[in-house]
Amino acid sequence: MSSLQDLTAKVVAFRDAREWKQFHNPKDCALSLVLEAGELLEIFQWKNGDEIDATAVARRQDVADELADIFNWLLLIAHDQGIDLAQALTDKIAVNDRKYPADKAKGTSRKYTEL
Amino acid sequence: MSSLQDLTAKVVAFRDAREWKQFHNPKDCALSLVLEAGELLEIFQWKNGDEIDATAVARRQDVADELADIFNWLLLIAHDQGIDLAQALTDKIAVNDRKYPADKAKGTSRKYTEL
Amino acid sequence: MSSLQDLTAKVVAFRDAREWKQFHNPKDCALSLVLEAGELLEIFQWKNGDEIDATAVARRQDVADELADIFNWLLLIAHDQGIDLAQALTDKIAVNDRKYPADKAKGTSRKYTEL
Amino acid sequence: MSSLQDLTAKVVAFRDAREWKQFHNPKDCALSLVLEAGELLEIFQWKNGDEIDATAVARRQDVADELADIFNWLLLIAHDQGIDLAQALTDKIAVNDRKYPADKAKGTSRKYTEL
Repeated sequence: MSSLQDLTAKVVAFRDAREWKQFHNPKDCALSLVLEAGELLEIFQWKNGDEIDATAVARRQDVADELADIFNWLLLIAHDQGIDLAQALTDKIAVNDRKYPADKAKGTSRKYTEL
Repeated sequence: MSSLQDLTAKVVAFRDAREWKQFHNPKDCALSLVLEAGELLEIFQWKNGDEIDATAVARRQDVADELADIFNWLLLIAHDQGIDLAQALTDKIAVNDRKYPADKAKGTSRKYTEL
Repeated sequence: MSSLQDLTAKVVAFRDAREWKQFHNPKDCALSLVLEAGELLEIFQWKNGDEIDATAVARRQDVADELADIFNWLLLIAHDQGIDLAQALTDKIAVNDRKYPADKAKGTSRKYTEL
Repeated sequence: MSSLQDLTAKVVAFRDAREWKQFHNPKDCALSLVLEAGELLEIFQWKNGDEIDATAVARRQDVADELADIFNWLLLIAHDQGIDLAQALTDKIAVNDRKYPADKAKGTSRKYTEL
């Protein structure tokens, strides 16, 4: 089993072996995350309706690769900024729980400002 | 301690309580991840040199919030597509280890195609 | 009628009156363009099938505003780098005309590498 | 000289010769614009300080190509939605002129909400 701590240790070790920390300011790391997220989205470009799920299945390995690239930057940025990702997510869920009360938000994709 | 499994269970439970699975096709989830990644990058817009790290410190809570939003989509997409994020990341590190051999890639930000 | 030259003169005059040229390095201008493009895409988040065109109609003013923001950065970057946008587009169309021959590309959304 | 009308006619003719209008819903066009904007930003990934302008010069043709790709989608979306780009930009400048009064915004990169 891999904890966030173990995975973070792996990506940091990979980076340190290449002495890449010197390039990893948070702006360029965020920029890199944006570009990888774009590569994930590109998989679904021009796909609509039933093609969307079919594409996710047909290109499952590509999806996994892009998710991994995004996860890599997420772990590195969190590590560099001393942010506990699990805690940040748990806190955010608590905030969203108030913004999107289950009874009001049920079955609608509207923004909290329109509930 | 929170494992990826625990965190995934939390974001899925949040979604299920709102019956939002019906909206969560992988294209719109990827699109949402791109938009959240953009919000992270926006924190560093117009910041350069020493301002970059100073901004990361001054807006640490905003950075944590955006990382959490990105993590949320990452976990949901992986869950929906039956992708083991920890395995995907470990596999990707192995691939990158061959693309960027530590001795050749040390101290350079060049792409593997230019090493 | 407004030529690209006239419109460029307008956005440059707006910038100069605020002495913002000092912030406009091409990296941050490109970053700003990415963020504005994200705002355009956000209009269509969670919209699928017939909702897509309906949303474009219902939020036509928002679409126009985002296109204007993108156009603003496009004109500024081209101006700052001494790039003739009309020529760049004409050149690109010529390149794409060879990459996507009309007889092979007709009616398919495949990439040129798959034609 | 090329007006926006002439350039729009060119990109629409290119599309029509390939019968691609059927794929060009505004969501996928906006998505494509986001991806092209990402390719522009990628040129400046890991570049900082003096390297930013030096990169813009060294890769001027790449910058021109990406601006052309972005411009292509901008013109197509505006055309499809019946939006006059020149008017939209002029209107937006008028709005920004009120949001960022020259005397208050001079020499600062702050958002209008912080002026």
